[in-house]
Amino acid sequence: MNYRIGVDIGGMSIKVGVVDENFNIIARHSVVTPDTFEKSMKATADAVMEVIGKLGLTIHDFPCVGIGTPGSVVPETGRLCFSNNTNWKDVPMADELKKYIPIPVYIANDANCAIIGETVAGAAKGRKHVIMLTLGTGVGGGIVINGKVFSGGNGVGAELGHMVLTHDGYPCTCGMNGCLESYASATALMRQTREAIEAHPESAMNAWVQENGEVNGKTAFECAKAGDETAMQVVDTYVGYLANGIGSLINIFRPEVVLIGGGVSNAGDFFLNKIRERMPEYTFAFDITGPTPIERATLGNDAGIIGASYLDEM
Amino acid sequence: MNYRIGVDIGGMSIKVGVVDENFNIIARHSVVTPDTFEKSMKATADAVMEVIGKLGLTIHDFPCVGIGTPGSVVPETGRLCFSNNTNWKDVPMADELKKYIPIPVYIANDANCAIIGETVAGAAKGRKHVIMLTLGTGVGGGIVINGKVFSGGNGVGAELGHMVLTHDGYPCTCGMNGCLESYASATALMRQTREAIEAHPESAMNAWVQENGEVNGKTAFECAKAGDETAMQVVDTYVGYLANGIGSLINIFRPEVVLIGGGVSNAGDFFLNKIRERMPEYTFAFDITGPTPIERATLGNDAGIIGASYLDEM
Repeated sequence: MNYRIGVDIGGMSIKVGVVDENFNIIARHSVVTPDTFEKSMKATADAVMEVIGKLGLTIHDFPCVGIGTPGSVVPETGRLCFSNNTNWKDVPMADELKKYIPIPVYIANDANCAIIGETVAGAAKGRKHVIMLTLGTGVGGGIVINGKVFSGGNGVGAELGHMVLTHDGYPCTCGMNGCLESYASATALMRQTREAIEAHPESAMNAWVQENGEVNGKTAFECAKAGDETAMQVVDTYVGYLANGIGSLINIFRPEVVLIGGGVSNAGDFFLNKIRERMPEYTFAFDITGPTPIERATLGNDAGIIGASYLDEM
Repeated sequence: MNYRIGVDIGGMSIKVGVVDENFNIIARHSVVTPDTFEKSMKATADAVMEVIGKLGLTIHDFPCVGIGTPGSVVPETGRLCFSNNTNWKDVPMADELKKYIPIPVYIANDANCAIIGETVAGAAKGRKHVIMLTLGTGVGGGIVINGKVFSGGNGVGAELGHMVLTHDGYPCTCGMNGCLESYASATALMRQTREAIEAHPESAMNAWVQENGEVNGKTAFECAKAGDETAMQVVDTYVGYLANGIGSLINIFRPEVVLIGGGVSNAGDFFLNKIRERMPEYTFAFDITGPTPIERATLGNDAGIIGASYLDEM
């Protein structure tokens, strides 16, 4: 038996999974994220014990517990600097977890866990140079260089969602302006969709919203696929933002593959192909260097758990 | 004797230097860059032999020849993909040089050579994580991670001047739009200065230009230091662009130090302090992570030669 255990902490829920040697999650447990940091850490440990108990195992059957969390984690201290999703600031995450978990605990940013998962078991398996963008509430970033996760010189970098896309641009939840996240997250896509519906009430997106209750990350994509012109414009503009951000990362990192994950990536090939089409516009010396593969992450929401469970090896 | 030899190829001149064990350049030779790639490679080899001859040495007294060139170099093949400064495209630089130079030749991007120089012997000596921006005709970028130069997964990355600063922004010489280079190079600063003079002919910059013949990278800084309001606005806007680009790089790389080199950096502390003042605006979670040191590169034009001479060790 060579089982591992991974935790994916989010603003809404804390998900725990036990991963077998074939990267399958063979047992899961999920709880709603409590309202304070301390309660959340206790709930994390309880969820870990719960899922282990389901399998008839004990904590000492595992080498360690790996945790993915929103925000920036200092590797040496296990302190979480800042997470604008859970609103935790400078908290001793490792110390708090060690109160309840008697084996080694590894903590990393959730986007880093996702890229580790994809590199160990998913769409980037075997690749040495990988960039991943997770398009959800925010834009998570992950960097793998020479087969190792790179999260900045002091471990709190790789904030790819907070590179600039437009100087003095749209306000970002982080307090800065013009971040990639404020144009290319699912949240931003929904804002862009709402604005387009307001400007073009005749758009099929309006009827879609009447039918489906509210705007979400699918609205523009589904109506664009059905041929609505305003929706196509929303998608094209959104893809332009994202492709420009991806291009900047290619010009810096020249990865073997760029992975797109998160809710928006569910729009699938229709979306991915549109990104690929735009890359000549945003890649330095594209005519000479050629295209960099852009692929959809394949592990979905499990990437975080699987990646967290391998933190001791990365 | 432990001498090394480095070459700095530029659009205007090819500079060769012999570097001693204390990082002093003890002999130099410089020639005007010829009009074709082939002639330029021959001229490079001739200049190398010339400077070695001055010291009464032969090429076999050196371990290798290190070359810095504008553009992206594929490490395995020694081919230069593309350089928009010298207008060379997909040329076999290593093969061409080997015709004339009978010892190993190492080739790298000139901005990478500059950061190697600064890390070996200059402002970043002893640092493991460094970002460098060279503000000249273009914006050159250099990245050191864990003490090693990182130039992208396939060796043609680290094009920090070609990360986006403004989506669909000002046209860049590379063919893309809105690149950091098109806002933060010396060329861009001169354009911004000219535009400000046109809009505000009463500015002291106008008189400065009458006196000095033409706009250059010093115009706005010198007049701003002297209190001219329009010049101060030019400087503040320019510094805002640059600080935003630097901030994005900090959010990704979290280096121990960011070095600023190139002609514009001659504006000195007046300039550096203005950048430092703006960093809270452009750094993710600045209130928690604090400032990243921003320093002026200290080797000036010699960084390229010194860095090139150490290419075999990086």
